[in-house]
Amino acid sequence: MTVSPGAGRPERVVLAGADIGGTTTQVVLCTDGLTVLDRVELPTPAAAGGQAMIGTVLGGLRTLLDRVPSRLAGVGVGAAGVVDAGTGRVLVASDSFSGWAGFAVTATIEEALGVPAFLDNDVNAFLRGEVSKGAVEGERHALGMTLGTGVGGALWMDGALLDGPHGAAGEIGHIPGFGDILCTCGGRGHLETLASGRSIAARYAERTGRHTSARGVAAAAEGGDPDAVAVFGAAGAAIARAILITAGMVDVTTVVIGGGVSRAWSLLRPPILGALAAEPPVSGHPIRLLRARLGGDAVAVGAASRARTELRAGCRA
Amino acid sequence: MTVSPGAGRPERVVLAGADIGGTTTQVVLCTDGLTVLDRVELPTPAAAGGQAMIGTVLGGLRTLLDRVPSRLAGVGVGAAGVVDAGTGRVLVASDSFSGWAGFAVTATIEEALGVPAFLDNDVNAFLRGEVSKGAVEGERHALGMTLGTGVGGALWMDGALLDGPHGAAGEIGHIPGFGDILCTCGGRGHLETLASGRSIAARYAERTGRHTSARGVAAAAEGGDPDAVAVFGAAGAAIARAILITAGMVDVTTVVIGGGVSRAWSLLRPPILGALAAEPPVSGHPIRLLRARLGGDAVAVGAASRARTELRAGCRA
Repeated sequence: MTVSPGAGRPERVVLAGADIGGTTTQVVLCTDGLTVLDRVELPTPAAAGGQAMIGTVLGGLRTLLDRVPSRLAGVGVGAAGVVDAGTGRVLVASDSFSGWAGFAVTATIEEALGVPAFLDNDVNAFLRGEVSKGAVEGERHALGMTLGTGVGGALWMDGALLDGPHGAAGEIGHIPGFGDILCTCGGRGHLETLASGRSIAARYAERTGRHTSARGVAAAAEGGDPDAVAVFGAAGAAIARAILITAGMVDVTTVVIGGGVSRAWSLLRPPILGALAAEPPVSGHPIRLLRARLGGDAVAVGAASRARTELRAGCRA
Repeated sequence: MTVSPGAGRPERVVLAGADIGGTTTQVVLCTDGLTVLDRVELPTPAAAGGQAMIGTVLGGLRTLLDRVPSRLAGVGVGAAGVVDAGTGRVLVASDSFSGWAGFAVTATIEEALGVPAFLDNDVNAFLRGEVSKGAVEGERHALGMTLGTGVGGALWMDGALLDGPHGAAGEIGHIPGFGDILCTCGGRGHLETLASGRSIAARYAERTGRHTSARGVAAAAEGGDPDAVAVFGAAGAAIARAILITAGMVDVTTVVIGGGVSRAWSLLRPPILGALAAEPPVSGHPIRLLRARLGGDAVAVGAASRARTELRAGCRA
């Protein structure tokens, strides 16, 4: 006979957060104080439809609940694309997901587990995570930027995520004013054409004829390759411009940057700070620039934080 | 013996609004529904100090109250520069004003008239006026732009003016991403370098060697002068870019444009709409572009509207 690890202790109440990415799905279990107790990372069955993707989340969650005996209070999910937080459905998904747009994410989880579930856009969840427990913990106002394959953005204003009248606020990757290169969205001169991982690779290939990933360009820059350094310099200058636009428009001067490209922080930070020093915000308030602290946990922790907020507000309790 | 025009009628309650500009001071008296009953326009004694400037407002107001027998409920003042709405003082004034920064605007008016007074930045007051009684009446979200000597901006979000954490939100004239021309503020490539009256005159002079005002450039453009048309085309394209940046950043898609340069609406509107058609906002929501409707009354009416809001909220009643 085995004794449960939790036997004799009062049952611990936990929150779960899931980050459903195009390649991997990360599920975390955390305390009410958002300390991560355990995590699993699983491949996302993006081509197999919504039921399979949520099945992966549920499987990961059951694994975690087996390892950490506890009572689950709620689940938050962060997913790429345009989501309807009210109905808990993905509205618009990227082409790499099949049978995902329209899928009833939260209803499926609630039915399987019997606890409330909440859905957020992944970049919003990233920023909520960093504000709740990361680099900008406790801030009332912050801009969040994720530099991944594309560039995502989110605004935390007056202690809440800014949705905007049509739920489309924070789309900093696709604002113009950054030159004239054609963007994946069909526009021109968007921030994403200079600062995303895909663009860093593309700009480097244009300069050198060499095709590598953004990580490859970062390695080359660290080795002193002037073209690679120039590509990161242009990315940093563009990020600084986006920061100045944000500061001028909404007076938000605290910035947290995450996503895969931010791993090359030693290459990005100097050109960002250099450009900001050359032209400070017109308000005169200095920019506070921070690298994301939660790493791969940020979206899942932010999703769990959203669940905590909603449960505390009693909306779905 | 003369009979007062109001004799025998119930006393009418009115609000006053004042727009203290660098050249002229406009004072209006309006109903509680913000219908302007009467107005006066007086030269601003900008070099003579705060007491003289507020003396002009009070003189104008007494003239109006003589002409429109009524009981004054409150006064709103719109003034250029950075203002502290809480203390009713101007914090930072332009060089053309003497003894204005630090002057106790609302306290001086309250002492003279015995009614509550409120102070706003003039561009904020402009947008509040247009939302209260002008081209964007009743909107929950709107961007306001004033194209005058410089370019001012204000954001109305969720039914209120956005102040931002340091009171500096809406500074759309000084966001970068509009080329490389040196701005009056010391920055480069700001919207103001292409879209202000001063810049329209300067850009035209650079192209042609001819020095005239923005109004002169507008007249030349209306006469078919290709350089003048190109200068207005560049201004319109820059305004469209600022609109797209706003839509991407905060998802606000209703725009009202005022200020002296907006009188050349037939020259500005086509290039703005052309640029917006070439690249719609990434959210897919179309832009609603409107010319300000209150003309020279907008700031004063907006200031009166602020007084009305505060009086209704009972903050100072």
